[in-house]
Formats: sequence, structure tokens, C-alpha cells
Amino acid sequence: MTPVDPGPTAAMITIGDEILSGRTQDANMPFLAQALAAKGIPMREARVVPDVAEEIVAAVNALRAKYTHVFTSGGIGPTHDDITADCVAAAFGVGIGVREDARAILATNYADPERDLNEARLRMARIPDGAALIDNPVSKAPGFTLGNVHVMAGVPRVFQAMVAALLPGLADGVPVLSESIRIDLPEGRIAGPLRLVAEAHPDVSIGSYPFQNDGGFGANIVARSTDPAALAEAMAALREMAALLAAPA
Amino acid sequence: MTPVDPGPTAAMITIGDEILSGRTQDANMPFLAQALAAKGIPMREARVVPDVAEEIVAAVNALRAKYTHVFTSGGIGPTHDDITADCVAAAFGVGIGVREDARAILATNYADPERDLNEARLRMARIPDGAALIDNPVSKAPGFTLGNVHVMAGVPRVFQAMVAALLPGLADGVPVLSESIRIDLPEGRIAGPLRLVAEAHPDVSIGSYPFQNDGGFGANIVARSTDPAALAEAMAALREMAALLAAPA
Repeated sequence: MTPVDPGPTAAMITIGDEILSGRTQDANMPFLAQALAAKGIPMREARVVPDVAEEIVAAVNALRAKYTHVFTSGGIGPTHDDITADCVAAAFGVGIGVREDARAILATNYADPERDLNEARLRMARIPDGAALIDNPVSKAPGFTLGNVHVMAGVPRVFQAMVAALLPGLADGVPVLSESIRIDLPEGRIAGPLRLVAEAHPDVSIGSYPFQNDGGFGANIVARSTDPAALAEAMAALREMAALLAAPA
Repeated sequence: MTPVDPGPTAAMITIGDEILSGRTQDANMPFLAQALAAKGIPMREARVVPDVAEEIVAAVNALRAKYTHVFTSGGIGPTHDDITADCVAAAFGVGIGVREDARAILATNYADPERDLNEARLRMARIPDGAALIDNPVSKAPGFTLGNVHVMAGVPRVFQAMVAALLPGLADGVPVLSESIRIDLPEGRIAGPLRLVAEAHPDVSIGSYPFQNDGGFGANIVARSTDPAALAEAMAALREMAALLAAPA
């Protein structure tokens, strides 16, 4: 259903037992997916992995080989369970240590760096060899880019600030345009004609996302394409289909 | 940080471009993670994959080899983009076709099955060879279990009903107990003593989940263990640590 991506692609790794526990919803993935879509970089896969080194390393290596960009969220703070930077260094097989530029940036966050930039906080200046820093205007501790992997904080406000700092520097793809139409009928009545519309518009990816509310079943039909004319034609066909389905038999 | 799992484990695959687009938040993963946790089956990994057959097949095969249970959500409806059942059959290398028991269940959903059980709807009775059906009290169309893979609907109300039908039949693990304490200090001040507490309580997994709100930075410290006594000892140590940190210097 999904057309082959002609341009850059992205994947995300959300790191943390807390998201996996189900108690905290991951707000960063939807935020990033929408920000990337606006740049024409589709999110093609997302994973949530636990705070376990070998799992993080394996996910980084699997996804960086497959997608143009990999974004990580979480595990770059000062506590003992923050192991993302070490895992990314291990995935690339490079060294890691406190870097002076990162230490200098961190120091600007404290009134008395000699006292406040303690051993735990200095962990946040540990940067893999060869990485470029990602600016963090909220709380200073930088993220970093190593190869095609962009390592960012888990706290949503910091994550969003890092995305804002990072994205303008990435090459744009061709934005995927999308339009949708809501049909208040069960998918089983929509599916037959919808397949015909989808087959007649091969340059448009057409998905059906069913919902149920108190009024019964319905579906949002979403059409996506990089070609505005093809999208308009598909939407016209979908509107015609919806009108026919709504007409009395 | 995360202890080795002594009992059953779980992973989830959420299928659908719509979740990957960021427009729709995945409510099924958090719901399932919490339901499984209550049974002592920890969620160890979650993936969101697009509506692309080879991606779905690869994720199913990677995760079913690694975890006790794999749960999928989405892509089992009647429309052309619902390809999950075929992909799971392909992952296991088994056939798939309309099964009479599934067709009979589906038929009960329609006043006039001869008329209403159209070709598209019959797709929902296509079940891989050897699978057991999962009851769907909401809208009849069943899910299924093949090997250790449990295939369920994406619509949250239907997904939740299928989870309720499925979970009582799965063997319980040892529930992981968790308690948390909120500390309204930046992680950089917590991290040093927290590491000592974590090292002193190796049977307890202690994670720090930072947040930022208008009052500044803070962290929820979450302790998890299958051993109630060990958890109580760790929590006592965490409370003592928090009191010391809050005391004036």
C-alpha cells in the first residue's frame, strides 16, 4: 500500500522502561513524525526499547543501516540508568568521553560550575568521538549527531527544542501531501468500492482507519501522495464513492 | 538496569501508517502493557511498522523468536490495506483461507448474511492454517493466535475486548511490583546518591524519569521488583535519600 520512498526516510528509537510500562505515553514520536512529515521525511518505523545496553545497540545498528535518519529519545541524563550515549558509541565502535565543548556548554547552566558541575552532571558532557552537538536551549545539556543517528533527550520540552535546533539542517525530501474523508459507515460497506478507487490511483497511497464511537462504526479514509494533481483526482473519486455509498439503495 | 526476566515476556507490533504519521496516538500499547504487567508478563519491546508486507513479516519473525508472546494491533479489517493476517501466515510459512468457523461467527453480525457478508467482509474470515480464534464481542470479526503471536484489531474498543478474551488463557508470570517517589530537584542533584541506592539494591530496578513543568525540573524515581521485601527496603532508602536532599545544606 505504501509507495516506495523516493527521498529521505526516518526511524525513531524511544528508550526507556517507563514508556514500555504503559504508564507514560510517548509524546515524542508523534511530535517528531509530524515535524519530519512537514520536511518531506516520512517516519517509516518506530521502536520502544528497554534500558538495556544490548537492546539499544542492536536497535541503533538495525535502523541506521536501513533509514536515512535515526532519532533517539531518552537516556541522556545524569542518572545511572542513562546509558544511551555509551550505547550509540558502542554501536558505531567509537570511543566516548567528556568533551570540552560540551562541558563548557553545560557549565553555563550553573551559577557555580566548580561546585554544581558534579560527577553525575559531567556524564551529560560525555560525547562519542566524532559526534556533532545538538543545541539544547532549555537545559543546556546537548544532544548529538553521530553519522545518521540523532540522539536527543526524553523530556518532551527538551526533545522538542532539540528537534527545532536539528531539523533545519537536514535536507528536505518531497513533502507527502495528505487529505482525508470521514465516512460514517462500517468498513465492510466501504471496502469493495475503496479497493477499486485505490487500484485506479496507483500513485496515491489510500488507507482506511476505522473507528467506533457511540454513533457506530466509521472510517477515516486518508489519501497520501507527493503529487498534488494525483491526490486531487483520488480525493474526487473518494468523494464520489462516499456520495454513492450514502445514497439510499 | 533492567533485571533479566525470569518468566514470560511480551512484545507488541502496532501496524499502520496512520500511527507512524503521528496524527493518531497509539492507545493500544499502553493499555496492553498495563494489562500484561498485572499478569506478571512484562512488555519488553514495542514496534510500529508501516502497512508494508515485508516489514510486517520481518517484525513478526524477529520478535516471535525472542519473546514469549507477540501481540499485534491493526490491519485485520475488510479493506485493501488490511494485510496483517496474510503477513502472519507468510511469517509462519502456512496457508491462509476463509475458515468456516470464522465465517459462521462473522455471519451472526448481519441481519442478512447472504446479502451483507460481501467479499470484502469475508476477508475478515481468512485465518492462517492452525490458528485459534480470539473472541470479539464488539464486532464479531475474530482475532487469532498462531504459535505465540496474537493478532488483534486496531480499533481500541475492539482491541481491548480481545485482550480481555485472550489474557485469562495465558500463563501468569511473577508480577513486577513498582513504587515511585517524586523528587522536585534536578536529576543532576539526585543522580549521585541515587546511583549508590541502586547499587545497594541489586534485586530492584531503579529508574529515574525526569520531567519539566513550570515549577522547574524534577524526576519520578520508580523502583521495580518481583520481591516485596526488597522493594520495601529500596523504597525506604529512596525516601531517606529524598529527605536528605531536601534538607537545607
